[in-house]
Amino acid sequence: MSENKGLSDLEIAHNATILPIEEIAVRAGINVDALELYGPYKAKINPAKLVLPEGKAHGKVVLVSAMSPTPAGEGKSTTTVGLADSLARAGHKVMIALREPSLGPILGMKGGATGGGYSQVLPMDDINLHFTGDFHAVTSANNALMALVDNHIFQGNHLGIDPRRMTFKRVIDMNDRSLREIIIGLGGPAQGVPRQDGFDITVASEIMAVFCLAADLDDLRTRLGRITFGYTFDRQPVTVADLGVEGALTLLLKDAIKPNLVQTIAGTPALVHGGPFANIAHGCNSIIATRTAQELADIVVTEAGFGADLGAEKYMDIKSRIADVAPSAVVVVATIRALKMQGGVPKDKLSEPNVDAIAAGVENLKRHVGNVAKFGISPVVAINKFASDTDEELQWLLKWCAAEGVEAAVADVWGRGGGGDGGDELASKVAAAVQGPSNFHHLYPLELSVEDKIRTIVQEIYGADGVEFSVPAQKRLVDIQKNGWGGLPVCMAKTQYSFTDDASKLGAPKGFRVHVRELIPKTGAGFIVALTGAVMTMPGLPKEPAAMRMDVGPDGNPTGLF
Amino acid sequence: MSENKGLSDLEIAHNATILPIEEIAVRAGINVDALELYGPYKAKINPAKLVLPEGKAHGKVVLVSAMSPTPAGEGKSTTTVGLADSLARAGHKVMIALREPSLGPILGMKGGATGGGYSQVLPMDDINLHFTGDFHAVTSANNALMALVDNHIFQGNHLGIDPRRMTFKRVIDMNDRSLREIIIGLGGPAQGVPRQDGFDITVASEIMAVFCLAADLDDLRTRLGRITFGYTFDRQPVTVADLGVEGALTLLLKDAIKPNLVQTIAGTPALVHGGPFANIAHGCNSIIATRTAQELADIVVTEAGFGADLGAEKYMDIKSRIADVAPSAVVVVATIRALKMQGGVPKDKLSEPNVDAIAAGVENLKRHVGNVAKFGISPVVAINKFASDTDEELQWLLKWCAAEGVEAAVADVWGRGGGGDGGDELASKVAAAVQGPSNFHHLYPLELSVEDKIRTIVQEIYGADGVEFSVPAQKRLVDIQKNGWGGLPVCMAKTQYSFTDDASKLGAPKGFRVHVRELIPKTGAGFIVALTGAVMTMPGLPKEPAAMRMDVGPDGNPTGLF
Repeated sequence: MSENKGLSDLEIAHNATILPIEEIAVRAGINVDALELYGPYKAKINPAKLVLPEGKAHGKVVLVSAMSPTPAGEGKSTTTVGLADSLARAGHKVMIALREPSLGPILGMKGGATGGGYSQVLPMDDINLHFTGDFHAVTSANNALMALVDNHIFQGNHLGIDPRRMTFKRVIDMNDRSLREIIIGLGGPAQGVPRQDGFDITVASEIMAVFCLAADLDDLRTRLGRITFGYTFDRQPVTVADLGVEGALTLLLKDAIKPNLVQTIAGTPALVHGGPFANIAHGCNSIIATRTAQELADIVVTEAGFGADLGAEKYMDIKSRIADVAPSAVVVVATIRALKMQGGVPKDKLSEPNVDAIAAGVENLKRHVGNVAKFGISPVVAINKFASDTDEELQWLLKWCAAEGVEAAVADVWGRGGGGDGGDELASKVAAAVQGPSNFHHLYPLELSVEDKIRTIVQEIYGADGVEFSVPAQKRLVDIQKNGWGGLPVCMAKTQYSFTDDASKLGAPKGFRVHVRELIPKTGAGFIVALTGAVMTMPGLPKEPAAMRMDVGPDGNPTGLF
Repeated sequence: MSENKGLSDLEIAHNATILPIEEIAVRAGINVDALELYGPYKAKINPAKLVLPEGKAHGKVVLVSAMSPTPAGEGKSTTTVGLADSLARAGHKVMIALREPSLGPILGMKGGATGGGYSQVLPMDDINLHFTGDFHAVTSANNALMALVDNHIFQGNHLGIDPRRMTFKRVIDMNDRSLREIIIGLGGPAQGVPRQDGFDITVASEIMAVFCLAADLDDLRTRLGRITFGYTFDRQPVTVADLGVEGALTLLLKDAIKPNLVQTIAGTPALVHGGPFANIAHGCNSIIATRTAQELADIVVTEAGFGADLGAEKYMDIKSRIADVAPSAVVVVATIRALKMQGGVPKDKLSEPNVDAIAAGVENLKRHVGNVAKFGISPVVAINKFASDTDEELQWLLKWCAAEGVEAAVADVWGRGGGGDGGDELASKVAAAVQGPSNFHHLYPLELSVEDKIRTIVQEIYGADGVEFSVPAQKRLVDIQKNGWGGLPVCMAKTQYSFTDDASKLGAPKGFRVHVRELIPKTGAGFIVALTGAVMTMPGLPKEPAAMRMDVGPDGNPTGLF
């Protein structure tokens, strides 16, 4: 993302004017005594002390999604930030709700998750590193649970937990492939009971999902207690409440659950809170953050991870069922580069003009746009401008959108900032869309069987002919029914690079089937995860990890961080 | 510790008056713009912004140590806090430097590590849970290193690292015995390279030790780079600098390295920062915290973990060699209960009057007192009063101290608080000791071989006849010499319950040998760890973990936390 400017994202962020967080709070309508400061530019908001405006209508939600991304991402966060800044510039009372970045990918290869160029949330280095410690708290709660479970087995196993049928793993906020498959408890009778195990990345933890879906502290405790971590020797599910430790896990999360207030470069208030991955979890910020933003602002701009097939579908079918957060407008971010990639251009040629490739790749965008319409919402396409884009390419895409009857605007929020005029046209189209009538509905009713819910998603959203279940997945379908979990929605775990479960199949493929290799009931979060294809719940590091370039400068500021 | 009062430590802490941390800063002579607030009652101090008083002499250090402890501890932190409060009450400009608590034992069985009764640092619940995230940052840095190392091996192993000769482990701030011995990297060529591994608890991480011994951010980077994490196939040590990731690790620690300011119940300023375990690491708070406190106050009261055989010896021989922090006075905390235990009384009978058992157990105290004198310092014995102590017992002990020519005072800082008159006599004796002449010297010169350094410690401090090295330890002694590490001091890892390496041998045993089973060169921290007996670098949870009682109350405050 730093190819077309002299300054890196980090340099732009450090050059920006940042206001004391109390000023941002006042701007957002937050009483300052509800703030718990973390340095001068970050604060948690204590919901118990927040005095909300009386009689104010809940803010409308704008959901920012995208076409299938390139590995560098399409600038969805950048568009989210820039769009919000542009809406604020046009006089709207606006607030951002964004998920927190995961440390693992930051040390690996992904850019920051705080936007880019002149559309960033600040302080970007803090937010991309430990921030206010929320992910560490989730990691602690997750691993406390597993230490307590293995200790229970070691100390006599009163509950009769079958060590071969554990479904919950330890987590670490790191890309660490060596921990994917491990054996623990070796060393003899004093060191525990040996069993097969593995670590997931923290953003794949059910505790992260529970954290993001909880309405408040009491709901958090209830959901934590409801988590199924494994099965007994007689194949009954065992929950956290059976073990009696939901109180301790709640205690470990009591501060993390308070949403974090920060600001954009243009001074727009942003709540950055929670962050499950959208390819392996439900993929959006906490309900507490979205609801708080709705109570304070008229328009809330929020993001769902990866392409609209993943984050947006889960936003509509999972998050919007639990709380009243259904979007009034959906933005689908597209880039000329991603269209070329979807049209078959190799990664090192994406900067070369190529309208033919765009015309081939636009089928991918078309399917995403059509998918959003299936939820009753007409999307707005945001063309996130890169410096390498030619006028001919941009005009071709605008014409295509017009011919398809889709609202679209070119946004240069990266280069000019939403606080400048880079996002004015996009903001005006989104503001209009928000006021339009909403026919929002979910894709499927909960009464469908889990099998049919998955079939509906893969056929309606991915464009597949059908779904194949592995033998273990078929067995789990029976269990799910037997245990009374058939009414839960489904959380698909799939590669973000393709509509199929194979990352190499680009464009808008047809004539394929999706392979469900494993089903994991997440009874605390309240959904069934379906792992498809080769999707991993623990990423690895690349050959040249980004960490190799990172350091602290003599001024105490980070260097090499994007 | 909560047996002899109607109120729990947590209740006393919640009933206490807590001042805004800015007021405490002013009291300590800290300019408020050097503070980075973490809520209203905690702040990090940014050393780059701290304006120090000119021409002020460095404060004198009072080191609080103890006799061999009972599993519940002897109230060393309580005495540290109460003594500082009493010194402040007597008009001294005083500051506390204390290590941070580890989350693992808190969820297990240990009480909080923030003092007790009316001698506590506040906010005790925050400090005992995630506090300002320092331990999470250490965990992240440690595990980032290991993910990068295993990724290096996976990606072609250019450095030729031998996966069978790794000496560095991943860590987790949890008591989790199942992770002591594990196999990682299973699952085939895409999941890494299989090898034997294990997790230590975070407080045993060399990165924690480095963090606590670093003078500043640059020294931190240098020490991190110097860490040896394993050996190549041709048996050469491989360091973090060889891998080139010391910058990224420094970045992950850049905020954690700033010391944390909090307050006691009586309003005395306290720096709580860093926290290696004293049985498996060097066991005291960061040098940055101790030095900062010395620059601000006239008297700094600090604590070294477990008994004087462990924490105090390491304070004298490791920490005091690296920085000018040698103690001007040493307090040895003793309790009637611990003396009875050392005299052979079973745990459930410690509250029954028993002068004979005290007379038998006092040999343990005598050896600790004598050991302190070997460093050129005459200790003050602090008798930490419990409600079950009889006058006869206390008088017996005071008389014994007088006969031995040892200064002593009964301190009721738990029940009455240092802010009350509970510690006045102790404070007056300590204030006198601080002014006395210091003949401080280390126990051994660095020129001795590692073998002879260990022999000196076990014979002079533990009272052993000698030391036995396992075959692997003998081989490592040769390596240490060959690699030029022979001049490093030694960090003994030993049970805290006995002078021997066997926790069941109480009192002041004679005629025993200490068994060194493993030597681990910590070239970043700058010492050689000697693991003796069965000492563990990863604790386990008890049958009824403390976590089972913990929760959050309707007011949002913790319940069941001590």
